[in-house]
Amino acid sequence: MNQLNTLLQSMEILAVLAFAISGLAEARKQRLDAVGAFILAFLTAFGGGTLRDILLDRRPFYWVEHEEYVVVLFVMCLFATYVLRVVNRVVSHRVLIIADAIGLGLFSVLGTSLALEMDLPVVTSVIMGVVTGVFGGVLRDVISNEVPMIMRGTELYATCAFIGCWVYIGMQWLDVAAAWKLLGATATVVGVRLVSLRLQWQLPR
Amino acid sequence: MNQLNTLLQSMEILAVLAFAISGLAEARKQRLDAVGAFILAFLTAFGGGTLRDILLDRRPFYWVEHEEYVVVLFVMCLFATYVLRVVNRVVSHRVLIIADAIGLGLFSVLGTSLALEMDLPVVTSVIMGVVTGVFGGVLRDVISNEVPMIMRGTELYATCAFIGCWVYIGMQWLDVAAAWKLLGATATVVGVRLVSLRLQWQLPR
Amino acid sequence: MNQLNTLLQSMEILAVLAFAISGLAEARKQRLDAVGAFILAFLTAFGGGTLRDILLDRRPFYWVEHEEYVVVLFVMCLFATYVLRVVNRVVSHRVLIIADAIGLGLFSVLGTSLALEMDLPVVTSVIMGVVTGVFGGVLRDVISNEVPMIMRGTELYATCAFIGCWVYIGMQWLDVAAAWKLLGATATVVGVRLVSLRLQWQLPR
Repeated sequence: MNQLNTLLQSMEILAVLAFAISGLAEARKQRLDAVGAFILAFLTAFGGGTLRDILLDRRPFYWVEHEEYVVVLFVMCLFATYVLRVVNRVVSHRVLIIADAIGLGLFSVLGTSLALEMDLPVVTSVIMGVVTGVFGGVLRDVISNEVPMIMRGTELYATCAFIGCWVYIGMQWLDVAAAWKLLGATATVVGVRLVSLRLQWQLPR
Repeated sequence: MNQLNTLLQSMEILAVLAFAISGLAEARKQRLDAVGAFILAFLTAFGGGTLRDILLDRRPFYWVEHEEYVVVLFVMCLFATYVLRVVNRVVSHRVLIIADAIGLGLFSVLGTSLALEMDLPVVTSVIMGVVTGVFGGVLRDVISNEVPMIMRGTELYATCAFIGCWVYIGMQWLDVAAAWKLLGATATVVGVRLVSLRLQWQLPR
Repeated sequence: MNQLNTLLQSMEILAVLAFAISGLAEARKQRLDAVGAFILAFLTAFGGGTLRDILLDRRPFYWVEHEEYVVVLFVMCLFATYVLRVVNRVVSHRVLIIADAIGLGLFSVLGTSLALEMDLPVVTSVIMGVVTGVFGGVLRDVISNEVPMIMRGTELYATCAFIGCWVYIGMQWLDVAAAWKLLGATATVVGVRLVSLRLQWQLPR
């Protein structure tokens, strides 16, 4: 069980970094300075969880309890050019996609589990999960004056989170142990995301 | 009195549907998939009330207490094409405008009455009312990367809500019974909205 | 000490007016009517503080406690054309820049001091300060469908607030008296802002 928790924690760090890097990359694309980079990286990494906590009226926020993440993000933004260059050299695009999918899955599933713990009804808990997973990216896109990626409909993204949250709820009904529920549902999101990307699935319009 | 409450409840259902359909129509215009359609329909229908509840620090949100609305919206989005086709065939544009005006009026007036119940001062209560009525549409437009309709100033919209909220407060001073206050102020909003559309009123710039 | 408080209060009024006028000017540029002008003026003046209070879960909002500001803003919007004409005639561009810098400084520093009073950690308090100072403008730009000014990176803006918040924290460590801390840190922001504008400093990209 202890090993599982270490695994979940490592996944969380990986997920925050992957989301922050996607914010940095967007900032690079728009040629923003360190301020813009920090805003985008912060919103992408913590925006979804923060919005969920505002909706659920929970405090303190994750990034208030873990200030070390904010400091790391800040340093990353000061050296954004180098960070992105190193990332591009060391990490393949495929690895970034996988890390982002892990973030999408983990954040969504954690959001749903938090809402269920607060005795919120099932449908609301799924919405809170999807919001946690995808709204960081939405806020990043809105503040960048772009139509949110998840609304352009070229890939399955929110849909993967949605499926994973229901899988989590299914495992809850089957009384699966806590860490396994998180892991199983996150794996579902990652699986659906990667398969859908490979097979270029889209929702009908 | 019972009949009045039934009337108010029917108006509420009508208003949520009208707002959701305006979100769906916007999604159609932008050729979004079901995810985008749900986000727009949800924001249009519940965004204003949710923002008001965040500002007033009220929980649970309306849509958490009435999950059935969220499920209905979800199903509508899955079949958005058919829903919009049926709506367009069965319901005239004029009926949609009226339903939307009822939503604008009812939501605004309910927002003001909630704020007054929490002993907020009058000006704040009017602002909360107008926010409830119009910010769903604002969020829909912002997330769609458009200048909000209410800021383009081609029609009176927020102004109608503003007038209705003051009428509600006036009736409060005159000690009018609760349901009649709601009905009277909502009718005022609908009236001003329809007359202003017909006569193409605009505010000066 | 009493004189210092009067000074701080005058600075606050000046700051709210400066922010509101910058919202009005933006509304003018976009040829909005009174509704749009009020939304922009309100968001610019109170958006940052409201977002901070939502994040810190504080109520009532500043503008709920000081309804007179909302009324003044409202009247200004009704007569936006005249207000801007008078402002342009009486007040030079340079004075507006200075008033805006005072607002940026005062709001940021007050935000940080509030967060520290709530025993939030230092990094979070700085973020809350910067959010208070700059997010009114960000919301104004996002709702106007523009990339936020602070992200365009043509001037130092958020950076000045950031520096001032750290100066405040430094003075806190040195046990400087409350009003002097506010005044000193605000003066730092104003100084950095004006010097950086004059010397056209930019952050590297």
